[in-house]
Amino acid sequence: MATHKILLLPGDGIGPEVAGEVSKVLAWFTRAGIARFETETDLVGGAAIDAHGVPLSEAAMDRAKAADAVLFGAVGGPKWAGVPYAKRPEAGLLRLRKDLGLFANLRPAICYPALAEASALKRELVEGLDIVIVRELTGGVYFGEPKEIVTLEDGQKRAVDTQVYTTGEIERIAAVAFDLARKRRNKVASAEKHNVMKTGVLWKETVTKLHAEQYSDVGLEHVLADNCAMQLVRNPKQYDVLVTDNLFGDILSDVAAMLTGSLGMLPSASLGAIENGTRRALYEPVHGSAPDIAGQNLANPIAMIGSLAMALRYSFGLLEAADQLEAAITRTLAAGTRTRDIAGPGTNAVGTTEMGDAIVREL
Amino acid sequence: MATHKILLLPGDGIGPEVAGEVSKVLAWFTRAGIARFETETDLVGGAAIDAHGVPLSEAAMDRAKAADAVLFGAVGGPKWAGVPYAKRPEAGLLRLRKDLGLFANLRPAICYPALAEASALKRELVEGLDIVIVRELTGGVYFGEPKEIVTLEDGQKRAVDTQVYTTGEIERIAAVAFDLARKRRNKVASAEKHNVMKTGVLWKETVTKLHAEQYSDVGLEHVLADNCAMQLVRNPKQYDVLVTDNLFGDILSDVAAMLTGSLGMLPSASLGAIENGTRRALYEPVHGSAPDIAGQNLANPIAMIGSLAMALRYSFGLLEAADQLEAAITRTLAAGTRTRDIAGPGTNAVGTTEMGDAIVREL
Ligand SMILES: CC(C)[C@H](C(=O)O)[C@@H](O)C(=O)O
Ligand SMILES: CC(C)[C@H](C(=O)O)[C@@H](O)C(=O)O
Repeated sequence: MATHKILLLPGDGIGPEVAGEVSKVLAWFTRAGIARFETETDLVGGAAIDAHGVPLSEAAMDRAKAADAVLFGAVGGPKWAGVPYAKRPEAGLLRLRKDLGLFANLRPAICYPALAEASALKRELVEGLDIVIVRELTGGVYFGEPKEIVTLEDGQKRAVDTQVYTTGEIERIAAVAFDLARKRRNKVASAEKHNVMKTGVLWKETVTKLHAEQYSDVGLEHVLADNCAMQLVRNPKQYDVLVTDNLFGDILSDVAAMLTGSLGMLPSASLGAIENGTRRALYEPVHGSAPDIAGQNLANPIAMIGSLAMALRYSFGLLEAADQLEAAITRTLAAGTRTRDIAGPGTNAVGTTEMGDAIVREL
Repeated sequence: MATHKILLLPGDGIGPEVAGEVSKVLAWFTRAGIARFETETDLVGGAAIDAHGVPLSEAAMDRAKAADAVLFGAVGGPKWAGVPYAKRPEAGLLRLRKDLGLFANLRPAICYPALAEASALKRELVEGLDIVIVRELTGGVYFGEPKEIVTLEDGQKRAVDTQVYTTGEIERIAAVAFDLARKRRNKVASAEKHNVMKTGVLWKETVTKLHAEQYSDVGLEHVLADNCAMQLVRNPKQYDVLVTDNLFGDILSDVAAMLTGSLGMLPSASLGAIENGTRRALYEPVHGSAPDIAGQNLANPIAMIGSLAMALRYSFGLLEAADQLEAAITRTLAAGTRTRDIAGPGTNAVGTTEMGDAIVREL
């Protein structure tokens, strides 16, 4: 049996709590003789700032590079609001993404039938919703240079961010979207602002060309990012796979996640290029560090446990174990076990640890 | 009686149809002896490309500068998809915004009680919704340089857009938001991505400082743009005035508009600085050119007529006439007269022209 090397980075806020539940699940798989994991744990974000003065230590970065997969909780919180920009908690996450080359962020937005009522949208609009946002994650305005604030002669300040995309960056993320669509409902929507942005012009042109040359069997639609945000609210089920840049992806995937009523339940995968049959990967819940409910055993660990299921599937090739874990989550929900965020009439509200225990019991 | 100079730019798609209904309303005010208008009409967008080869002629630009207010329909459509970037239909609108100095875009998102059912959101979340998005309109990634696509040595292309904001640009738009909030529920939320963007850092810092120095009586909250998009879906009524940059404003205001179920009903105002007691202004519906329904007498003219009401109020100082026009719209809706986009059980579906006539009758 192969040993899978995991780096667990719980981070801040509810991160450590939900990461704790993942450890229980890993322990179960080991006990059951299904897989063997070597798990290291390290600090990231505010926790790393407090300990080392930086949001990600070099040692942690090295461990991330050596791991088969990184499981990431969440970072940030009001405590570190005053930390200088270069050392803020989020910089730890951004460095992991960039230095591990995790250009493809897959964010499923699934509306769990049992939770359709929890959505802000009318039930019929979200029931059965199952879309994936494929977000470019190592380019765009997040990393382009210059990125600076300068003081002008008149004392005013001038801030600059730069959005850059190359043909190659767009091609590789579009290919991920097309490949994924072929395994799903075979439809890709590509969102940009080609009517205002040159990166949008190149984005549309490149996606169109790649489609014609290699993916003409897949349905392709171009949509302006502002209209796409509207369409997600109006009729999200029209989409299957939605591919977009780093900044639009940040916003559109949050809208899509919120639509489902299942924010505390949605995992995500950030993947690198395949090299020698393997690829670097980081898995994290879509939700943030939620400092307001941290440390109170209130957080929903399902997004984090679901992120482990994605790791089992995409990084460790443990397809059956992934299915098994997802089925255990579904059964736990069907039995009416709910954390507060998804509790409803006739359900049994439990805390973070009880939810983790319940899922392990279903395994 | 003063004469108010209006430049009407109907544009493309449904633009000319909805602009036609505005002309009827102007004629009524003139006949009633309430105000005198001098209305010129010119081409913009695709219509101007077809006639002059550019999306806005110099003559039209001069007329816009000479007018007390510009009433703008909508631009763009598949017909001009192949037009070079610099001459695309949208460039006409962007030039008007930039050259008239219209830095403040006010986009109310109001849920008309009669239409709450038309929203994708559950009724209780949107009923009574009344927020205004204050979008910066002449800066940011829309206009920053460099903005280009270059071909690299290896044949790849590299596209760049630049987002720039100065202290002064942020201060003046924030002041508009704070002033507006004082006349409303006295709350401002400011949305940016200071965790990723330097323009976000300067934005937050500048808004905070202005607030402390001049608007500490107004409630202020900072929210990350991705979270803000989520919050708009989760619980939009938590907001009163929402101020944000050009690109986030583009997306967030479309989300907010869609929430209301009243997309075809929402007007907007784009305002310049006050100089010698007057300010340049352009009024336009939030919806686009909707080429799919153009020329079929299906478009809802209320957003465009509502934009005229905003012009009466903000540009011509005709506050009573503005109230009168808005009341006529409300009565028309209450009587069950509806265009197709807002029709529902028990209502009387009419075309664009009939809706315009009905509003004039209510006047
Ligand atoms: C924490 C933050 C830097 C991050 C982002 O903006 O990418 C988050 O919002 C996300 O979507 O993962
Ligand atoms: C037509 C387009 C250039 C414009 C924009 O992006 O600003 C539109 O979406 C808007 O919101 O007014």
